[in-house]
Amino acid sequence: MRREAGNKVAANKPSWRIGVAGLGTVGCGLVDLLGRRPNFAPGGAAVVISGVCARSRLAKRAADVSHLNWFNDPVALARSPDNDVFVELIGGSEGPAKAAVEAALTIGKSVVTANKALIAHHGAALAALAESTGASLLFEAAVMGGTPAVKMLREAMVGDEVEVVAGILNGTCNYILSEMESSGRGFGEVLGEAQRLGYAEAAPAMDVGGFDAGHKITILAALAFGCAPTFPAALVEGIQTIELLDIGLAKDLGYRIKLIAAATRSAAGVSVRVHPALTPLDHPLAQVGGVQNALFIEGARIGRIFIQGPGAGAGPTAAAVAADIADVMTGAVRPVFQSPAAGLRPLTPVDAAHAVGRAYVRLLVRDEPGVIASISEILAEAGVSIDSFLQKPVDGADGVPIVLTTHEAPETYLGDAIARMGALPALLAQPRVIRIAPV
Amino acid sequence: MRREAGNKVAANKPSWRIGVAGLGTVGCGLVDLLGRRPNFAPGGAAVVISGVCARSRLAKRAADVSHLNWFNDPVALARSPDNDVFVELIGGSEGPAKAAVEAALTIGKSVVTANKALIAHHGAALAALAESTGASLLFEAAVMGGTPAVKMLREAMVGDEVEVVAGILNGTCNYILSEMESSGRGFGEVLGEAQRLGYAEAAPAMDVGGFDAGHKITILAALAFGCAPTFPAALVEGIQTIELLDIGLAKDLGYRIKLIAAATRSAAGVSVRVHPALTPLDHPLAQVGGVQNALFIEGARIGRIFIQGPGAGAGPTAAAVAADIADVMTGAVRPVFQSPAAGLRPLTPVDAAHAVGRAYVRLLVRDEPGVIASISEILAEAGVSIDSFLQKPVDGADGVPIVLTTHEAPETYLGDAIARMGALPALLAQPRVIRIAPV
Repeated sequence: MRREAGNKVAANKPSWRIGVAGLGTVGCGLVDLLGRRPNFAPGGAAVVISGVCARSRLAKRAADVSHLNWFNDPVALARSPDNDVFVELIGGSEGPAKAAVEAALTIGKSVVTANKALIAHHGAALAALAESTGASLLFEAAVMGGTPAVKMLREAMVGDEVEVVAGILNGTCNYILSEMESSGRGFGEVLGEAQRLGYAEAAPAMDVGGFDAGHKITILAALAFGCAPTFPAALVEGIQTIELLDIGLAKDLGYRIKLIAAATRSAAGVSVRVHPALTPLDHPLAQVGGVQNALFIEGARIGRIFIQGPGAGAGPTAAAVAADIADVMTGAVRPVFQSPAAGLRPLTPVDAAHAVGRAYVRLLVRDEPGVIASISEILAEAGVSIDSFLQKPVDGADGVPIVLTTHEAPETYLGDAIARMGALPALLAQPRVIRIAPV
Repeated sequence: MRREAGNKVAANKPSWRIGVAGLGTVGCGLVDLLGRRPNFAPGGAAVVISGVCARSRLAKRAADVSHLNWFNDPVALARSPDNDVFVELIGGSEGPAKAAVEAALTIGKSVVTANKALIAHHGAALAALAESTGASLLFEAAVMGGTPAVKMLREAMVGDEVEVVAGILNGTCNYILSEMESSGRGFGEVLGEAQRLGYAEAAPAMDVGGFDAGHKITILAALAFGCAPTFPAALVEGIQTIELLDIGLAKDLGYRIKLIAAATRSAAGVSVRVHPALTPLDHPLAQVGGVQNALFIEGARIGRIFIQGPGAGAGPTAAAVAADIADVMTGAVRPVFQSPAAGLRPLTPVDAAHAVGRAYVRLLVRDEPGVIASISEILAEAGVSIDSFLQKPVDGADGVPIVLTTHEAPETYLGDAIARMGALPALLAQPRVIRIAPV
């Protein structure tokens, strides 16, 4: 890592010029914030936007950008000597966002970005580039919006050895699950409403498919464990298949279904997973409602730290970008992740075949003698023991839903049992399996 | 603020030498941490303890310090060219701790301290000294142990305007109140147990009198609002007068009594207060048990952030000191508080005569006709309206306890009413007033 960095010399500047690529919600939030409070940075230097760039100059926006110097090409903005820091708010792991960030870092210009996909896919290479030219690469706004999860792991926890990071990292999914429960409406209907309210994108797969949370937990895992961010190693399942029936039955059992993103480190390697999970009603994560985000960090020395706050929105996310700009202004020289990029360990994923956990299983069966005995037998033979059992008639339903929870068992054992159950003649639908959060 | 600071030049060092003054719980925790993980800092440089100092060389300690270079005088250690960073873990706002910190900062040596009293009383002067010589002055471990409240306010929230900081900042008081509730034992008995367990000091006034929490919220207010830390401006009340009876009655009303530290900013000025407060049972702060700490930060843009974690202990607090050492190693140049010391606003306290709030009032009265009418009349005349009312006979008690909660009213109005109630012949004891948390 080059120590005599360009941005260190610049720590004397009386004012800092910022180039902003991307003028969506967060970009306009930043234009607004810097317009109102150019002297927000504690050191006293002013921060001014000296150039902007977006796909369309004439799009309707939440902030007035007509007075700002316009660039058509984000790469040209990134390279322009007219700005000292390049802020990338375009999004996407490839294409113009990546090209522009690389262009800035190549010439030693510090980059602040909210782009979780870019960091989750290319973080290690970009860190190596930044460290070779002495630029900073900061991405607080990429995870949990205005809630400083990145700073906590990158800076506050360095005296500790972090073992677990787990939480609720996608506000859209949390909103949808909360609304399904409180309003008794199904996934599709609530998603449609979330789209109308602007809580979900027109193309919702990135959120509801778990990929957004997957990008975020990949970044947190890298910061927590000193490994290279490696999105393909993450197990990612979304909430599209969660039914209202499961939300209700889970509640009867004392749980709430949440999309949980978790990264753990053990002797076997690192596990990075996003999936719906039954969370005990009295657990702090079960009490996180609406578009809020929350995170547990568990360290060997510090124990458990819990943090909760807004995970998105123009105000919080722009404030996180501003905090990163202020950090660049301090001239701090630190690795992008938990060690210089050259020393980042490759992420050794835990073999999915060794994953162990508890599960909720819902079966729809014909109400006839011997069904429960068959199910119990199959589970016992597979080596999975039952923790609780609930049979609850549902009005108008075809067949009887049976719900059981298992004790801790290898996920492959349960998979075997589920496959065998599929052959039972009394079974009216494929079994529905949802993991139980390991809390 | 000097920009070409001594510690910036030092950012190239292959190893950093640390002088540690004070070898109590936290000091020994740091000796242990750096002994096991000298390479904890992300940049790769090693951190070694090159000198230590404490009152007694031969005291029994949790860590072996026999191999470390011993100094008898903390000021000599602070001035010694044999260390690059001075860590002050002596404690106390005056005396050797202050002299040693001043000695280090005067020669441009960066200081890391866990000393909340020192910063709450002398933070502004020490910040001015540090900034004049280009030294860093960091104190993450002074507030909430391993939970990074200081870093959040100093760095992560700079893009926002913070309006409220409120939480539970003293683990000893929280432990005592939690134990009183769960075990049904009185304050004195639980305090004695806490002292035996090492959760409370032999001289407990600093904790149970609210002064420790007062120092901490004074520091957080300075970071949140850009004003000079000014401990004498804080209102501080402790938990010594909280009775088991009040804990039980509060619970009947749906509250738990907590020692709440809060700082708020309004047009009228800054209010910094520590006092016991009835907190709704379903509020996150009411659910913080034992020696945990927790904090809300409320900003105009970001909204509410909640953070909870261990507030003390060798492991967490030493990890916070280590994180500060790693920060010094980055060479970051930033003001000690939210603006250069010369620009810190004086703290303008809100006039206590204008404080407004809700309250819990417990009265012990002789059971005779007209008592309740008299009490109601006195409150109405003072301009305080009653929200709820509870009369509950207690076995073996002399008289009948009456409990009421008020709607929001000026505290002086309630004070007048309480004074008048004191003259009622049916009153068997002085009324007991506890504030209700404004959540």
